[in-house]
Amino acid sequence: MNKFISIASLAAIAIAAPLPAQDTEKPEYPSPNAIVEQAAPEEWITIAPSDLLVMDLAPDAAGEPRRVIIQLMPEPFSPGWIRNIRKLAAAHWWDGTSINRVQDNYVVQWGDAGYDNPESGETEQKALPEGLETVPESEYLSKLTGVDGERADKIGSGPINNSNENYRSDPYGNTLFGLGWPLGSGNFSLWPVHCYAAVGVGRGLSPDTGSGAELYTVIGHAPRHLDRNIAVVGRIIEGIEHLSSLPRGEGQLGFYEDAGKRAPIISIRLGDALPEDSSPAFEYLSTESETFARYADARANRRDPFFNVPAGGADICNIPVPVRRVKGE
Amino acid sequence: MNKFISIASLAAIAIAAPLPAQDTEKPEYPSPNAIVEQAAPEEWITIAPSDLLVMDLAPDAAGEPRRVIIQLMPEPFSPGWIRNIRKLAAAHWWDGTSINRVQDNYVVQWGDAGYDNPESGETEQKALPEGLETVPESEYLSKLTGVDGERADKIGSGPINNSNENYRSDPYGNTLFGLGWPLGSGNFSLWPVHCYAAVGVGRGLSPDTGSGAELYTVIGHAPRHLDRNIAVVGRIIEGIEHLSSLPRGEGQLGFYEDAGKRAPIISIRLGDALPEDSSPAFEYLSTESETFARYADARANRRDPFFNVPAGGADICNIPVPVRRVKGE
Repeated sequence: MNKFISIASLAAIAIAAPLPAQDTEKPEYPSPNAIVEQAAPEEWITIAPSDLLVMDLAPDAAGEPRRVIIQLMPEPFSPGWIRNIRKLAAAHWWDGTSINRVQDNYVVQWGDAGYDNPESGETEQKALPEGLETVPESEYLSKLTGVDGERADKIGSGPINNSNENYRSDPYGNTLFGLGWPLGSGNFSLWPVHCYAAVGVGRGLSPDTGSGAELYTVIGHAPRHLDRNIAVVGRIIEGIEHLSSLPRGEGQLGFYEDAGKRAPIISIRLGDALPEDSSPAFEYLSTESETFARYADARANRRDPFFNVPAGGADICNIPVPVRRVKGE
Repeated sequence: MNKFISIASLAAIAIAAPLPAQDTEKPEYPSPNAIVEQAAPEEWITIAPSDLLVMDLAPDAAGEPRRVIIQLMPEPFSPGWIRNIRKLAAAHWWDGTSINRVQDNYVVQWGDAGYDNPESGETEQKALPEGLETVPESEYLSKLTGVDGERADKIGSGPINNSNENYRSDPYGNTLFGLGWPLGSGNFSLWPVHCYAAVGVGRGLSPDTGSGAELYTVIGHAPRHLDRNIAVVGRIIEGIEHLSSLPRGEGQLGFYEDAGKRAPIISIRLGDALPEDSSPAFEYLSTESETFARYADARANRRDPFFNVPAGGADICNIPVPVRRVKGE
């Protein structure tokens, strides 16, 4: 019956739709998405397959495949944990683990749910691969300047647009975009922030207890109070709906009490470990490009026909960095 | 197997857990939730059953009931649309309609999906009840002061804590809490804002085209660019997981193309139209109370044991107003 639904009918019930201007006297402004579509080819930056983490869940109830693709952060952000994650993927450590926690308006978390040894009565965790690093709390930040010459070069005087115009102030402090990522800024440091779809490293009470084996992603309003308190290592760039639409966990903090509800993880691999014909390829819009600046301005000042009052601003998590698939649909 | 998972094991894999302080030298600060638990009884305000909208969806695949409870906004916010919604509920207008749109990190929308008349080839909409108002764009705002004496009394000099300390600045402007709700503020006006779980009125291109028959709720990062552009009429206070975990729509804007995927709405009723023994009762923590101020400060400056760096601030949508059920679980 759907195929008969007319465009006019859809428009009548849609909100915030990027509809074409009709009989209106307002000047025509392109929507943020229309601006991105006009970007020059050289403003798009290839994401290396080695910076992708590809998670395949067991098929859903209808037998449909569920693939989730994560982009890992570039140097110099969260490097110790990302080295660990590369080792865990190479060791196929996540294969056979599961999605264990789904807390509404907060996070989905995956990794080893533990095995209850009936002989000892204890919960046993899967052994981690050799050679994982214990990453210190200091790695939550990347110094803008200082004794670490390499980092200063990459950030302070490197490709990040460190101009005043790129800074936005919000209740959490200063933010800016750099190297394709939303970042917090202060005290001569930069750090990744917890926007929707950000991927972080679960940990215990001590800040150095997260190995990277337990990961989570944000499925609600940006929990920015976690910034600088947990390591952000990436973001989901495709397939987050396979996680955000999972049934919420009934236990404390959204953990599943019924193990049967945990979605099984078939495998997690780095993008360059997949067969070349199934290796996905993506690009992101350079956050240092002119088109990105226009896009960010349009997100903050919506003037496309649906809108009557431009907000005059937008928080950094309401300006998602555009990412597009270029191969292997 | 889950019942054997030890607390220690849970702690090892949990993030941002409100865990008790253990062997730590940090001073002990209560978590935001612990502060709320200590609120005095008189700081909780009853939500009138007549201000609740109770939506029953068809049971889920496992046969479990799915009830979603919405709190409508108090006067003087969005009054015309809320009068329409009361009429629509009294007319049982939503019964037999459906959830038609689920767009990831954005909204879930419900109402009449339209009926495709095979004779005419046209999509026909369900007739609306008599007497609905066409609500003007001016109702998106409530004047703080001015010629409208009643409103000025209720807001400007009424129960809202209109002190400077209650204002928070964010990229969208000033915000404050009042009458139990997160509000935007500027130009001598207040308006409701789009936080997670906010319920708003779908409309077409013209700002006065939303009757209240098409409603949506926010299931992602707060789309604050919609503030003052669409009417917010309430918030979901229980059961949002029945909407946020629905499969995402495969069509444009997240509309379902396959009508079979639409979750059927059995009924939507005002809370006082339900049989008394099934009528739910809720309270919210007064946003003018001392405990709310402490809670908001703790949300902005997390010092409970998990946290190492208090953020120093929080946006208004990261400080959800506490609501609790007091009857009819």
